[in-house]
Amino acid sequence: MKKSVFYHAGCPVCVSAEHDIINLIGAENVEVVHLGEFRDKIFDAENAGVQSVPALVTPNGNVLHINFGASMEDVKK
Amino acid sequence: MKKSVFYHAGCPVCVSAEHDIINLIGAENVEVVHLGEFRDKIFDAENAGVQSVPALVTPNGNVLHINFGASMEDVKK
Repeated sequence: MKKSVFYHAGCPVCVSAEHDIINLIGAENVEVVHLGEFRDKIFDAENAGVQSVPALVTPNGNVLHINFGASMEDVKK
Repeated sequence: MKKSVFYHAGCPVCVSAEHDIINLIGAENVEVVHLGEFRDKIFDAENAGVQSVPALVTPNGNVLHINFGASMEDVKK
């Protein structure tokens, strides 16, 4: 199965959601991307439709915005 | 593993998220509750911390609000 991608920015809401997602779907099924550390991935995330973090992009390209940690505008600052 | 509970209200955002969640974690791992059809479950959902639907309550009791379909106030109408 193609992996999901979990985008986050290190905020407490993000970290909590990351643990939940990994528990639910398995660490081997999700690639975790910290947009604060890998800022060149912000473009990829926005292209995928990510509007806020944490967000999970599913293998079929849907974006699940999970709770609310920060907007993409805040991530860019 | 204890099941997660996916609360929704039949809205398009909910249905789309339901498909994604079932694809990701497996139908056997999630109980789906339609709050429009089972209105007595609204109390359970609010008690679990659900503020909007669709939302997934994980086996350890965390609430993942996924995208935004409707607030619980709207669901009660």
